[in-house]
Amino acid sequence: MNSFGRIFRVHIFGESHGECVGLTIDGCPAGLPLVVEDFLIDIERRKGGLQKGTTPRKEDDLPIFKSGIFNGHTTGAPITIIFENKNTRSDDYAKQRSVPRPGHADFTAHARYGGFEDYRGGGHFSGRLTVCLVAAGVIAKKLLAGISIESNILEIGGETDLGKGLQKAIDEKDSVGGIVECIAKGLPIGLGEHFFDSVESVISHAVFAIPAVRAIEFGTGFAAARMFGVAHNDSIEDETGKTRTNHAGGVVGGITNGNDLVFRIAIKPTSSTPKEQQTWNWDTNEIETFSVKGRHDLCIALRVPVVLEAVTAMVMADLMMLSQKIKPVWK
Amino acid sequence: MNSFGRIFRVHIFGESHGECVGLTIDGCPAGLPLVVEDFLIDIERRKGGLQKGTTPRKEDDLPIFKSGIFNGHTTGAPITIIFENKNTRSDDYAKQRSVPRPGHADFTAHARYGGFEDYRGGGHFSGRLTVCLVAAGVIAKKLLAGISIESNILEIGGETDLGKGLQKAIDEKDSVGGIVECIAKGLPIGLGEHFFDSVESVISHAVFAIPAVRAIEFGTGFAAARMFGVAHNDSIEDETGKTRTNHAGGVVGGITNGNDLVFRIAIKPTSSTPKEQQTWNWDTNEIETFSVKGRHDLCIALRVPVVLEAVTAMVMADLMMLSQKIKPVWK
Amino acid sequence: MNSFGRIFRVHIFGESHGECVGLTIDGCPAGLPLVVEDFLIDIERRKGGLQKGTTPRKEDDLPIFKSGIFNGHTTGAPITIIFENKNTRSDDYAKQRSVPRPGHADFTAHARYGGFEDYRGGGHFSGRLTVCLVAAGVIAKKLLAGISIESNILEIGGETDLGKGLQKAIDEKDSVGGIVECIAKGLPIGLGEHFFDSVESVISHAVFAIPAVRAIEFGTGFAAARMFGVAHNDSIEDETGKTRTNHAGGVVGGITNGNDLVFRIAIKPTSSTPKEQQTWNWDTNEIETFSVKGRHDLCIALRVPVVLEAVTAMVMADLMMLSQKIKPVWK
Amino acid sequence: MNSFGRIFRVHIFGESHGECVGLTIDGCPAGLPLVVEDFLIDIERRKGGLQKGTTPRKEDDLPIFKSGIFNGHTTGAPITIIFENKNTRSDDYAKQRSVPRPGHADFTAHARYGGFEDYRGGGHFSGRLTVCLVAAGVIAKKLLAGISIESNILEIGGETDLGKGLQKAIDEKDSVGGIVECIAKGLPIGLGEHFFDSVESVISHAVFAIPAVRAIEFGTGFAAARMFGVAHNDSIEDETGKTRTNHAGGVVGGITNGNDLVFRIAIKPTSSTPKEQQTWNWDTNEIETFSVKGRHDLCIALRVPVVLEAVTAMVMADLMMLSQKIKPVWK
Repeated sequence: MNSFGRIFRVHIFGESHGECVGLTIDGCPAGLPLVVEDFLIDIERRKGGLQKGTTPRKEDDLPIFKSGIFNGHTTGAPITIIFENKNTRSDDYAKQRSVPRPGHADFTAHARYGGFEDYRGGGHFSGRLTVCLVAAGVIAKKLLAGISIESNILEIGGETDLGKGLQKAIDEKDSVGGIVECIAKGLPIGLGEHFFDSVESVISHAVFAIPAVRAIEFGTGFAAARMFGVAHNDSIEDETGKTRTNHAGGVVGGITNGNDLVFRIAIKPTSSTPKEQQTWNWDTNEIETFSVKGRHDLCIALRVPVVLEAVTAMVMADLMMLSQKIKPVWK
Repeated sequence: MNSFGRIFRVHIFGESHGECVGLTIDGCPAGLPLVVEDFLIDIERRKGGLQKGTTPRKEDDLPIFKSGIFNGHTTGAPITIIFENKNTRSDDYAKQRSVPRPGHADFTAHARYGGFEDYRGGGHFSGRLTVCLVAAGVIAKKLLAGISIESNILEIGGETDLGKGLQKAIDEKDSVGGIVECIAKGLPIGLGEHFFDSVESVISHAVFAIPAVRAIEFGTGFAAARMFGVAHNDSIEDETGKTRTNHAGGVVGGITNGNDLVFRIAIKPTSSTPKEQQTWNWDTNEIETFSVKGRHDLCIALRVPVVLEAVTAMVMADLMMLSQKIKPVWK
Repeated sequence: MNSFGRIFRVHIFGESHGECVGLTIDGCPAGLPLVVEDFLIDIERRKGGLQKGTTPRKEDDLPIFKSGIFNGHTTGAPITIIFENKNTRSDDYAKQRSVPRPGHADFTAHARYGGFEDYRGGGHFSGRLTVCLVAAGVIAKKLLAGISIESNILEIGGETDLGKGLQKAIDEKDSVGGIVECIAKGLPIGLGEHFFDSVESVISHAVFAIPAVRAIEFGTGFAAARMFGVAHNDSIEDETGKTRTNHAGGVVGGITNGNDLVFRIAIKPTSSTPKEQQTWNWDTNEIETFSVKGRHDLCIALRVPVVLEAVTAMVMADLMMLSQKIKPVWK
Repeated sequence: MNSFGRIFRVHIFGESHGECVGLTIDGCPAGLPLVVEDFLIDIERRKGGLQKGTTPRKEDDLPIFKSGIFNGHTTGAPITIIFENKNTRSDDYAKQRSVPRPGHADFTAHARYGGFEDYRGGGHFSGRLTVCLVAAGVIAKKLLAGISIESNILEIGGETDLGKGLQKAIDEKDSVGGIVECIAKGLPIGLGEHFFDSVESVISHAVFAIPAVRAIEFGTGFAAARMFGVAHNDSIEDETGKTRTNHAGGVVGGITNGNDLVFRIAIKPTSSTPKEQQTWNWDTNEIETFSVKGRHDLCIALRVPVVLEAVTAMVMADLMMLSQKIKPVWK
């Protein structure tokens, strides 16, 4: 299902080398001011174009409003936005058809969709689709007045000095991964529900929709498994729920406790790398050595922060609406 | 929402110190043989009673079939099963009402449900509810003929020698956490969908419904963020999709690739510990020192493997039904 | 799916001649006072026991609370209620197994569930399950403070004099159907959504879950198809949305307009009748003449009003919660 | 929610006088051949342009594929199709803003969306959106190989001679309604589920999404309420489930029984009519006499058959996929 959310419901569509990618948001309240300019910063952030290690591909990603917006405001009807695909060179990909690239969805997509999938540049599996998530995030963030959601890269290629991490990839002519943290401040106490709609459940559901995510941890995460109970428990200090420490990352019993929501994700190294590697060839039924042609990121993690903010905002907007806590302060 | 699944749909209910806990499964195929004996081993495993470090509380957890089973087989109608609560001493908890226990849902539940929540022993937030997940897992596993799902503890209290880890907790009169791995073998290629219903998305959604889970990683997980691309990519070896390595943990592009599905979770140390700790008192509005009375596990991770298998089986049964791959070989 | 609702979510389970029937409501707000006595009047109304033409079967249908209620109030956790089945004589039905009764689900259930269905007394298809709907309705009505929902029988056996209609059935030793109207007063303007969640869509979805319903019409319904436009249009009279006439039955564009919500349903004659009829025999593969034994209603429509109110209340509670219009005035 | 279906999931968007209307289908199997030509007949049928009584508005409704189709086949990724709006004269509508038209969603949309709704030509409430339903129906019908779904008008303006019915509207300078029947042949036994996913429930849910529908009846429908039980019961004749009569309209216990699925709907007279009528004016707060300008249908029912077929096909495709009965014979 290419849909997420119970009330604030995001649907995405499109392929990397098709005509466009896009999204429809159903359930967005009416009256939210929305113009193209609202999207530009986050779309630019996603390109990562200014940074060493991101692809030079020029994406002129202007959102084109197709429905749900009238006189500069949302109408309460479904909002559809598309992003046209430009300068897509499909030939690069068509040639590689018989060689399912390791780490890519080529093989699994073929199995799942019987060879009818659009294989060009990953098709619907492409990271290109994350521009749709970013757009949904822009709208979600506007709904979340008074709440800030910020993501930052903690590590690239195992280095906290990010330039050093990227240099490792350049030196090796290979790709590297990274670790990205997200912090949401200002969330009300009481978002989320016990068991299957715990805050961790819905966030991780949405976060693993981002290509290349391999892990998620809340608060102290894996390190919690190596702590004693009293050291890990966060002492409550007053009636606002403020805790002395925040090992829980702002969620207890699946419900926000009024402290900062904190979680981290692991991004694998970009699957496409200039370096030679081996795979099996469908046509020859033999193992062959090949290298991926075309424009690719040395480190996809550089583009992730704004996408991570976006899906977090989508989840929070939905939980806020479910809890009837969205304030229409934008009016 | 206390429901999970699109086709094989599990609903849970009940409270730790109420009359019972239970579950309803809607969408289970008709004709699956099902008797009380099918549940006994996994229910016993969940008790963890034989192991050092688990609570001595005697739970005679026999499933009571209320609907959906006739002449020893499922009927296609909703299956409701309850587990009665026995020997529940509510007094222990009532006294502690004014003291929201750190690491427990006392504070967040109060905020979320306005003080109407059943606070006794965690109420509906209690780990007691995991017996319902285990029961759902028993049924799901029976549907998954030819697929094995196994969980094992990798670490307790930071030690791979589990007895040593538990001894640390005993020595400190405190609690410890742990790391649990789950491996599913025999899954067909092609389960899962791109983006919001990726295998990682739906597994993590279900897994974070297990109380005390703080993190999840697939394949090499966080370690992937520190690898180079070519080292991380799993070379495909033949038309079955078999890969030389399995850093991806059996999922590429959100879809199973025919290799073992592998993931690990972090379990925090039990929040209730015999050791003294501090919290804020609702009535006095002061910080006080207290210690949790009653029966509690030194290490809740000991009980987790069977629960983790259960939710994984639930997810897989649902994905298999969505993909029309359940074989009614049980008939 | 035995579930209904997006926020106020009702799940039903159980069989006519099994141990019990029951329901779980997930998403009910915490703090609603709820005791057994709240259910008695509607459960009694459903029995229809005082009226000529309803079955003499004695059903002592006391709701047994299993979860979600504590100290006389809802807790916000799932509410599970069961009704035990008593005095169920299964033998009557077992004998008839080879004879799929016309108008009953015997044949279709067998096809759908491969012969594993509980065939006794209709099993999970039985009208017995409507007691679960009635219970859900009792809770929904309590949430709908200030809104009244009332159903009345308009016609029995084609007669508006109901006694006369029933007498026709008695004289013919056959069964009759009827027409039931439901009117909801006090609904706010603006419930419902365009297209797939129109008020008519969600009401009719729920209403056709009531066994024996064959048709539904809103406002003037089928008669509207024979009117001119200007005569059918309801002139708006003031800013409250009050209209001079109410041919629309209170819904325009799928959204409530502030006038009474009015709709009618057709109930078919009870399928089980004392009169002889013909059907095909699975074992002999021949047509045979038979008559249905056991206790049955001459006119099931007599029991329908309270069930119709109940499902309408369920729908309205869900729409009110989606629109954030439930007022917790019960506190 | 502008979405329908559990597996074959249709989302619609757009406004009458916006840039376009469109749809996304998620869950359509991969490999279905699909070209623009597949849509032309049904789109032409929806225009009703050849018949007396339908609007002369020229709609060049060519489907524009935006995603999910590659090399003339569906890919398994979401299919997005848009229809551009042309020659939309918004001025006609803008002038009427202060006059909520009786029978239209003007008043309720304003209440529901706070005045932010796109009011031009009904905006997202417009019958224009039915072209999206028709497109979804084209795809659904292609999936339903071996099943025929046909709708016919039974009555216009109370006349079975349709020309006569239309003439009444022309003579009166008013609009008229009609009755439309839908028959599906070739459905397998066993589609649908007990209670909330009964075939009648899901069909009526989808059917009431069609603007102007006021009623639905299955089989003998309202007339069933005036029949005796034995006369109404359909005698089963053989192991295929064939019944002597078909008063049930092909559904018993909410599940298809192998006979023709038959149901009828009532369409109200077009709300917009050239005749003068009265309404209340938001600005002046007075009742005023007005007449609707612009191009309008004398009888919207003329356009309904193809839309009714479409939503029925959508429902059936979803039920067939849920029952794992779609045969990929198109390959």
